[in-house]
Amino acid sequence: MSQLNLASHEALRISPRQAMALRPLVEQFNIEYCATLDSGDIENWPTYFTDDCIYRITARENAHLNMPVGLVYADNKAMLHDRAVAIARTQMFAPRTMLHILSNTRIIDARNEEIIASCNFLLLQTLVEGPSTVHLAGTYYDRFEHKGEQELLLKERQVVYESSVIANDLVYPV
Amino acid sequence: MSQLNLASHEALRISPRQAMALRPLVEQFNIEYCATLDSGDIENWPTYFTDDCIYRITARENAHLNMPVGLVYADNKAMLHDRAVAIARTQMFAPRTMLHILSNTRIIDARNEEIIASCNFLLLQTLVEGPSTVHLAGTYYDRFEHKGEQELLLKERQVVYESSVIANDLVYPV
Amino acid sequence: MSQLNLASHEALRISPRQAMALRPLVEQFNIEYCATLDSGDIENWPTYFTDDCIYRITARENAHLNMPVGLVYADNKAMLHDRAVAIARTQMFAPRTMLHILSNTRIIDARNEEIIASCNFLLLQTLVEGPSTVHLAGTYYDRFEHKGEQELLLKERQVVYESSVIANDLVYPV
Repeated sequence: MSQLNLASHEALRISPRQAMALRPLVEQFNIEYCATLDSGDIENWPTYFTDDCIYRITARENAHLNMPVGLVYADNKAMLHDRAVAIARTQMFAPRTMLHILSNTRIIDARNEEIIASCNFLLLQTLVEGPSTVHLAGTYYDRFEHKGEQELLLKERQVVYESSVIANDLVYPV
Repeated sequence: MSQLNLASHEALRISPRQAMALRPLVEQFNIEYCATLDSGDIENWPTYFTDDCIYRITARENAHLNMPVGLVYADNKAMLHDRAVAIARTQMFAPRTMLHILSNTRIIDARNEEIIASCNFLLLQTLVEGPSTVHLAGTYYDRFEHKGEQELLLKERQVVYESSVIANDLVYPV
Repeated sequence: MSQLNLASHEALRISPRQAMALRPLVEQFNIEYCATLDSGDIENWPTYFTDDCIYRITARENAHLNMPVGLVYADNKAMLHDRAVAIARTQMFAPRTMLHILSNTRIIDARNEEIIASCNFLLLQTLVEGPSTVHLAGTYYDRFEHKGEQELLLKERQVVYESSVIANDLVYPV
């Protein structure tokens, strides 16, 4: 089960000054994460996670009800790796491109070598010879490993999207 | 009347270095403001304003003509409070979700315990069992109270949206 | 020819800490750049470039194939100036408004008074009495002149948009 509270609005558990100081660090992580995905370098996607990570994509509705089900669920890095390899090998080359727009990175807590944060995302999809459309919009709810000067790693990423309907073709990570 | 110039492009009145130094502070404020609105915690929305605040939602066209009319207008916090209570009590539970994407926070001036800033926003609406669509796009034009180490408060927020047509159902704050 | 690699995902050539330190500087530049364009102050658009700048708007598909063609191409500031004047004089007044949403500013390299960076953009267009729609989404690939305390200037901006089709009416800079 998720260790994050997705069911309601969480107040900051650190001061706004502390949140401000840590925000660039989490933004830096997410910028690289999205650059990897948007470039189609999906086999490197699992490198952003810890070995015992949780990764889930689920609808806002399910998240609010604390329902464990989701569109995608993995509870360790090996599962992410299997998924990444499967996608990389079965997708046609570049039938579409994805572009992440991130904003509102919110640092909620930071203690015990862990950062709790959220971030809004807009995922644009562009089919070959088609327009760019909003494929998915939502919020990342994250728990990062934060050890000294080491790079951050995701211990948990809950991708909560707004819509309760979703195109069947969502196979790519978000 | 607004003390902000909405009719034309304003040059920075501080150095880019000063603007850079203050940007995280205003971003921090706006991230929390949007988290409150997007979570539906509308009764806490007025806490982001000073007692004698101005809040208006208006079309770009009206703003350019310096027309005082707008879709929504309030000139003190009590009015915002009344509005928030009315919306919280009359809306059906979660008929839709809102998600703010913010960017381009621009610090224009800072003096006399006041910060003048603007920020682009994209407001996505997702109806139950529907896709996420762009509900409103535009710019916040803001005047913040900035007293020492105290948290920022809005003395004035002019929400200027791009479209001259708007769905009748805009009752939520932006 | 472009000195930037648009054909594949580029790893950072500086440390994440260095990237974090320079990010606000590039964000500051891009915020002002977009404020100038979105306000319609197009005659000032060339002031963001060096004299011998490269500016191109091209489709992701072309960029991946390293094809030099593009929708728009200029290889010095005088060409940008001519273009800006032509647009400013021939466009009807405010038939539409443009709004840039920027995110994911990525600092890839910094040395020899130069910064290599990229940034995702979403360009919203609003026709008079119409809704706001996604006009163009993509990535800026940039090479900045970075001389001491001087403001940044663009030595090269490659605007790479996702779609392979585009409305014929793209005359405005991006």
